[in-house]
Amino acid sequence: MVKINENFFALKESYLFSTTARKIREYQAAHPDKPVIKMGIGDVTKPLTAPVVAALEKASREQGDARTFHGYGDEQGCGFLQQAIVAYYRETAGVELKQNEIFISDGAKSDVANFTDLFSDDNVILIPDPVYPVYMDSNVMRGRKITLIDGNEGNGFLPMPYEGLEGDIVYLCSPNNPTGAVYSREQLKTWVDFANANGMIILFDSAYEAFVGDKELPRSIYEVEGAKKCAVEFCSLSKTAGFTGTRCGYTVVPEDIVIGGRSLNKMWLRRQTTKYNGTAYIVQRGAEAVFTPEGMATCRANIEYYKENARIMADALTELGIWFTGGVNSPYIWLKCGMDSWEFFDMLLNEIQVAGTPGSGFGKCGEGYFRLTAFNTHENTAEAMARLKKLLKK
Amino acid sequence: MVKINENFFALKESYLFSTTARKIREYQAAHPDKPVIKMGIGDVTKPLTAPVVAALEKASREQGDARTFHGYGDEQGCGFLQQAIVAYYRETAGVELKQNEIFISDGAKSDVANFTDLFSDDNVILIPDPVYPVYMDSNVMRGRKITLIDGNEGNGFLPMPYEGLEGDIVYLCSPNNPTGAVYSREQLKTWVDFANANGMIILFDSAYEAFVGDKELPRSIYEVEGAKKCAVEFCSLSKTAGFTGTRCGYTVVPEDIVIGGRSLNKMWLRRQTTKYNGTAYIVQRGAEAVFTPEGMATCRANIEYYKENARIMADALTELGIWFTGGVNSPYIWLKCGMDSWEFFDMLLNEIQVAGTPGSGFGKCGEGYFRLTAFNTHENTAEAMARLKKLLKK
Repeated sequence: MVKINENFFALKESYLFSTTARKIREYQAAHPDKPVIKMGIGDVTKPLTAPVVAALEKASREQGDARTFHGYGDEQGCGFLQQAIVAYYRETAGVELKQNEIFISDGAKSDVANFTDLFSDDNVILIPDPVYPVYMDSNVMRGRKITLIDGNEGNGFLPMPYEGLEGDIVYLCSPNNPTGAVYSREQLKTWVDFANANGMIILFDSAYEAFVGDKELPRSIYEVEGAKKCAVEFCSLSKTAGFTGTRCGYTVVPEDIVIGGRSLNKMWLRRQTTKYNGTAYIVQRGAEAVFTPEGMATCRANIEYYKENARIMADALTELGIWFTGGVNSPYIWLKCGMDSWEFFDMLLNEIQVAGTPGSGFGKCGEGYFRLTAFNTHENTAEAMARLKKLLKK
Repeated sequence: MVKINENFFALKESYLFSTTARKIREYQAAHPDKPVIKMGIGDVTKPLTAPVVAALEKASREQGDARTFHGYGDEQGCGFLQQAIVAYYRETAGVELKQNEIFISDGAKSDVANFTDLFSDDNVILIPDPVYPVYMDSNVMRGRKITLIDGNEGNGFLPMPYEGLEGDIVYLCSPNNPTGAVYSREQLKTWVDFANANGMIILFDSAYEAFVGDKELPRSIYEVEGAKKCAVEFCSLSKTAGFTGTRCGYTVVPEDIVIGGRSLNKMWLRRQTTKYNGTAYIVQRGAEAVFTPEGMATCRANIEYYKENARIMADALTELGIWFTGGVNSPYIWLKCGMDSWEFFDMLLNEIQVAGTPGSGFGKCGEGYFRLTAFNTHENTAEAMARLKKLLKK
């Protein structure tokens, strides 16, 4: 008699985005003359840039010609794309990686979740709160013990290790989703040293690294000494280049990570060759175009557009004297709303027709906070902030 | 101190294809004047067809225009493609499925392997021998107990359940990789009845269904009554439409499969929404084109080309009086070589410059057998068979 994985039923259902969507829909139906400005958008809104589209079209045509057709490729990705990423790390972060340390995939979400395959279920997992739900859920599915580490105003939503903190694997996300907070090099060094001293692995999600403009802030955990001995880095073209619907990510597993004599790099290679069949050739050619000078320039222009929105929001909140994090090196702003998150959501929706996301939806430490995102237009973002200022200055 | 998943080190390394490739390379280097005909090709050789390429190009352009851009899509796939597959099942197999029973992915390999997430590690897994290695390895990684069920000349390499056979989950692959053997409806009915009587789940790999031409043979396990209560079906466009490098597959999880009150369909939906982020929009549009009348006609023409190769091989083996399975409703031929598989490999390579794949590489029951594939050209296939006839008639 087949036995199912009962851990699935320990998963919490999240109704966050379905509830916000329903409330917006209901408000709009009742007030068709008062258009709602959506500041909760979690997806990019700018299309793929011209060099990327040209590469996708060219690769599509290659697949239609026997002389240039590509069948099964290496599960770890095409060499041309791995090499482009090696060069990108060198240029943007001053980090040297080997080609075989880079694994191409269909996205960071898959890799973050699938990487749990490599570890025993007998590990304690440390997860910051508030949090991107995949870290939690992929471990709950394996029945692992999870310890939350609190983000709050005191630590700027950047939890740090402390004496007595016990765990085997820690998830860090910087720039953070949902808070937009970014760890400094010194803070990451503290984490890396703590991990190396305690035999811990850091799973570092850098999906928003392209939003980091401040040279003093790290774009990769490998900018920190010792990280190659303990940290795996997950990144993606979703936010860097608008690939949310085109699907391409990459994971860095340094050769130097050795656990009990076993290479984590070789384990991930074995996992991917066994359970994955490589990323579409066409998509990898589109991804390669992101890393050309033209690709970088056009993708950067889109990011600057979103960052201008973040600046508009940050300026308004500063003017209002509201505490917030994010918004400078991130498309997210996380503000202290001074009341119940859902009450604040309802107030903004009903009084000024602006929709964001209640912080409590991302974890218990998110209660009293609220997330705004930078993926709307300049015009809508400015209008939303004008309305917010009018409301809160009352 | 982090603990790795020690089950990874119970995996056997497979050197099958690296060894055959090395032997061919070495022979060719030593005998540059004697070109080797490769009859071990496991990948398609025909490019994507024109309607598919046109759809990929069009979708690429859509991704470059804000008015038609697609960001995050549903993890279970786009409705247009699910509906095309519902229609395909109706037309080719007379099977009625619901849209929400079909899950789109980047390929059958990922789904077959990831589906193991849904089950407790406390299950006994039944796997035919010889076998596609993913069934075995993805369960070894979870430390599960595996029982092999033997394929042989007696059962035509189509193992059947027998009294006393104990297990919770069984993998079936038909048309089979590597043997090309195809279960009849009656045989599948026996398996389905056995599974339903014993609370077993059948994981049915139908990746080669498009090669089934014989109307008496099933293309889907759902052609058999009762299968919707116990069988999950994995399929792919890799062999149907040459998508080995373009990556699109689909998995059918009927709503009727309920285990201890839990819906397997809902569990897979939860797995995919948590650990997968959907298949590239562009690729799904290319896949949709496969199911149009023009797409079907062009893909079918490629399959017929490969099947003509299989026919050439089957005719030669029949003439030689060699026992074989496959080759009629499959791109694979599995022949009895009457000696050690590797000795036969070496003999064919050295004497007639034809390379195939030794059966023992697919499992202990493959010893004494040899696989030929239909993915070369007509000319090369005919030449290889002419040489084989000359050699074996001696």
